[in-house]
Amino acid sequence: MKEKFSGIWPAMFTPINNDGEPALDQVEKLVELFISQKLGGIYILGSTGQGLLFTEEQRKQVTRRVAGISKGRIPIIVQVGALTTAEAVRLARYAEQCGVDAISSVGPVYYSGNAAMALEHYKGIASSTQLPFFPYQLGENFIPGDTIQFVNQLLNIPHIAGMKLTTNQLLEISSIHNYAGEKLKLFSGSDELFCHASLCGTVGAIGSFYNIWGLQCKQVLMEFKNGNYALAQEFMLGFQKVICKILPNSWTFFRKAMLLKYQIDIGEAKAPLGNTQIEWEDEAVMNIFKEIESLAVH
Amino acid sequence: MKEKFSGIWPAMFTPINNDGEPALDQVEKLVELFISQKLGGIYILGSTGQGLLFTEEQRKQVTRRVAGISKGRIPIIVQVGALTTAEAVRLARYAEQCGVDAISSVGPVYYSGNAAMALEHYKGIASSTQLPFFPYQLGENFIPGDTIQFVNQLLNIPHIAGMKLTTNQLLEISSIHNYAGEKLKLFSGSDELFCHASLCGTVGAIGSFYNIWGLQCKQVLMEFKNGNYALAQEFMLGFQKVICKILPNSWTFFRKAMLLKYQIDIGEAKAPLGNTQIEWEDEAVMNIFKEIESLAVH
Amino acid sequence: MKEKFSGIWPAMFTPINNDGEPALDQVEKLVELFISQKLGGIYILGSTGQGLLFTEEQRKQVTRRVAGISKGRIPIIVQVGALTTAEAVRLARYAEQCGVDAISSVGPVYYSGNAAMALEHYKGIASSTQLPFFPYQLGENFIPGDTIQFVNQLLNIPHIAGMKLTTNQLLEISSIHNYAGEKLKLFSGSDELFCHASLCGTVGAIGSFYNIWGLQCKQVLMEFKNGNYALAQEFMLGFQKVICKILPNSWTFFRKAMLLKYQIDIGEAKAPLGNTQIEWEDEAVMNIFKEIESLAVH
Amino acid sequence: MKEKFSGIWPAMFTPINNDGEPALDQVEKLVELFISQKLGGIYILGSTGQGLLFTEEQRKQVTRRVAGISKGRIPIIVQVGALTTAEAVRLARYAEQCGVDAISSVGPVYYSGNAAMALEHYKGIASSTQLPFFPYQLGENFIPGDTIQFVNQLLNIPHIAGMKLTTNQLLEISSIHNYAGEKLKLFSGSDELFCHASLCGTVGAIGSFYNIWGLQCKQVLMEFKNGNYALAQEFMLGFQKVICKILPNSWTFFRKAMLLKYQIDIGEAKAPLGNTQIEWEDEAVMNIFKEIESLAVH
Repeated sequence: MKEKFSGIWPAMFTPINNDGEPALDQVEKLVELFISQKLGGIYILGSTGQGLLFTEEQRKQVTRRVAGISKGRIPIIVQVGALTTAEAVRLARYAEQCGVDAISSVGPVYYSGNAAMALEHYKGIASSTQLPFFPYQLGENFIPGDTIQFVNQLLNIPHIAGMKLTTNQLLEISSIHNYAGEKLKLFSGSDELFCHASLCGTVGAIGSFYNIWGLQCKQVLMEFKNGNYALAQEFMLGFQKVICKILPNSWTFFRKAMLLKYQIDIGEAKAPLGNTQIEWEDEAVMNIFKEIESLAVH
Repeated sequence: MKEKFSGIWPAMFTPINNDGEPALDQVEKLVELFISQKLGGIYILGSTGQGLLFTEEQRKQVTRRVAGISKGRIPIIVQVGALTTAEAVRLARYAEQCGVDAISSVGPVYYSGNAAMALEHYKGIASSTQLPFFPYQLGENFIPGDTIQFVNQLLNIPHIAGMKLTTNQLLEISSIHNYAGEKLKLFSGSDELFCHASLCGTVGAIGSFYNIWGLQCKQVLMEFKNGNYALAQEFMLGFQKVICKILPNSWTFFRKAMLLKYQIDIGEAKAPLGNTQIEWEDEAVMNIFKEIESLAVH
Repeated sequence: MKEKFSGIWPAMFTPINNDGEPALDQVEKLVELFISQKLGGIYILGSTGQGLLFTEEQRKQVTRRVAGISKGRIPIIVQVGALTTAEAVRLARYAEQCGVDAISSVGPVYYSGNAAMALEHYKGIASSTQLPFFPYQLGENFIPGDTIQFVNQLLNIPHIAGMKLTTNQLLEISSIHNYAGEKLKLFSGSDELFCHASLCGTVGAIGSFYNIWGLQCKQVLMEFKNGNYALAQEFMLGFQKVICKILPNSWTFFRKAMLLKYQIDIGEAKAPLGNTQIEWEDEAVMNIFKEIESLAVH
Repeated sequence: MKEKFSGIWPAMFTPINNDGEPALDQVEKLVELFISQKLGGIYILGSTGQGLLFTEEQRKQVTRRVAGISKGRIPIIVQVGALTTAEAVRLARYAEQCGVDAISSVGPVYYSGNAAMALEHYKGIASSTQLPFFPYQLGENFIPGDTIQFVNQLLNIPHIAGMKLTTNQLLEISSIHNYAGEKLKLFSGSDELFCHASLCGTVGAIGSFYNIWGLQCKQVLMEFKNGNYALAQEFMLGFQKVICKILPNSWTFFRKAMLLKYQIDIGEAKAPLGNTQIEWEDEAVMNIFKEIESLAVH
């Protein structure tokens, strides 16, 4: 039987209409897309989903709609982290009422503080529901050497189920896995390293680029685990090349790519996010599609 | 004639009631306190004022009340930075309607990005009103070597009047002053270095500790400029010692200190801010008061 | 035909006698060991070999002896980097006369400077011989975003053949490989990530731990490339666990481990290196041997 | 009576001849210059003096000559730090025999390690003579929060007399002074902040630029302490402007400046130091002299 929390999970874009509000019709199309692709699950309202840039009410709307469409056909994790613990708790409880599968939270934002502050923040959120909890690491000031001590304290948080990692330090991932084992299901957050991270004991990966190439990444990860080293090496090198091209203007790319490939309009990123990015020509986007296709066909 | 934007400015605490809302009666008392102390001005809703932890409506309430009380008796700068440029613009326009003296903004939060993103964000905010604008530096990822290039672009922003600096790199402050001269009124944000920073060309200082010791700091800065090196050295060393003692539990200290010294209740910081801080005994707070008093009396 | 510069290369310990001088008889035993293990090659006088802690004359002695023993039976790369370019050049020329296969150099030491300084330093060294040159990255102040620009300039250095990487940023490795392709043979320097790095296009790995477990690592890397994902995952996780245990007292471990396993005495590290490390019990070292053996036996 | 270790100390350039050896005749001229200027003392063979780029024998030569010329007319501190503790100890003992006033040492180089390693290294050096000892901070990996713990351990080192600070974090300097008081005479190492640092309790400053403008800096520091705030502000801002202009090509500037101003040839820096710096026109150097002169004349 397949593990509920595993595999390739898009950190779902939150489509936005011209007024800066969630475009719920496009949200539906995205959810149906990922269900049809049989991806591992959907992670909503994280950094890619611009969760923190929406009002509390808008975040609840999106959560309700996603849960309402998916109806258990695909696992859903909702990122509920917010500037105050109080708002995060309200979002967590609302998500539970909507029937999602788990909640997640970024560390403290703005006042990024220390590990103790993050742990207390996480504890407040995790305790407020019965849902499995997948926190991030401890905010923005992570010091590698303190990882194990932090993880040890994390294991005492109610309903802790895993982590949504942001690090690209693979030894940090291995160290967490070596320490916590099955007690923490680890999702890697560096799209460009999803195969490498699986060697460190991750159960899956959550990221932006799986909105576009979820199918390809799912196939590569499966084949890599089944022994196709050559495919993994070739794909990851090509995927990394593409990611590096896209990153400086990622939000304009994402919008056009989703439109061209899936006819889904995710709208313009909410400023200041993407406020200096230049538009992509259709042809440039299509060329990148071809680059990826040339890697995954075997 | 005194320069409007200069001197010692408290980054005003925003008093909070038991429901987590702004306690406007205590706000009034704070404003009257600073007016009576003849401080340089008041900076509201910044990091010390927990600006980002309030809703848009609450931030407007506080702005309206502060402007309504001060009525031009003391200059007011409102920090309007927010997670989205759109919200910051609404806050800026509201502040202008309330008749404050200037606006300020932190750099992009959460998606901290690069200097270009910050500049575009700042430009959007500054253009939306006729008020003098005092941005922070470029968010959290400041690279010293890029300072001058950044400042050069900052000077092209409409209504730019100065900066609220957060750096403790004094050469960075001097470099900005040497480059921009009178075009940028610089406020230093490191309370523990307000005298040192004045040697770098700052016009004044904005900070948390001036809520408590604004009078003392005002006197020391004035005497230092008038040649009292010995007082400045003694006071700054003692002040730094006190700041280092307070910082690990600053929010609980601030609350008790304001209550004991001025009978103003600023309430509990909004979690996760201060969520791991331990309470201070009255006596420990009083001892710190005595430490400062012993430095400034001459 | 096997590629000359590839596979698992121990960054050879330089055995030291009680007077702090190179123990050449133990050096011989080490070289014979690695030849008998059919490892990819031997990298001498790098950080692990304490190259910079020996006098110029001592470094020449070691180079001469290693070249004299190996006599082409195994490829040898000599790290010639030194505090001055002039000394590095003398060491490079001497290495060439001894008939080694390639030279390598750390970036500028102490005055770590910028990429331009490193490139000029590398150019001076590389130009002084006809040997293939494998520089490190650009000293200690590497900024990932500048990687490609740096690599582009590196490609103009005479006799450039590859790089000895120290980074644990795998995307940096992939980016270099994607840019330079076959023009740069990349050796990864993070022992704990040698399989992960091979997915990024490295030709091999150079590191301390291969002095002890070169055979096991060689086998794992080969099987990983041949499709044994499960072995690679299990071994790397276990190897990482062991490395994390050893690192805080690595020099005392290395000495005892080489003595117990191979009857080679590498002596005491030259202070300040290892000057605070505590001694290992024989049993603790033996237990770590067992831990590794349990991973690689299949 | 004047304190022996205080005031403005040039980190003396070590003049070099065309063969890369110390030019002892120019060394003599430098020492006489500083004696005639009645500067606080002379700090030799540090980073500015390229100490680590000379052989052990050359460092001894320079030490002997400087001590031989000064003959107690000006205090001398010798930087004896080296790649190995053993070499540093030999240099320390030699310096003591030469009759210098104190020794100093940089932290571990190359293997920069942690505070414990630095302390052990310092202890080894300090214990080897009866001279007052002025270590640097703990190498290159300084973490501000650990300052006090480090200083506390430093106070247990034999003959500890003070520190040669490299930090530009003024709160770190104040924190050390607040903790150690008269037990540690602190010299600041950031030339551009020598007045600011004196507010933090430093007894003086050691730096490169005092080779050229020792007299001016001595006067400014004295007047600043006597109440001339305006002079200090004007001079420091101008001095900082000049330093920022010089830094990208400091070694070529230093050489030409010493030649034009004092007819002393310090020679070319030992590569890789300065290996990418461009030459200065005489006029550009003279203009910088004028800039400084315009600041200090009152």
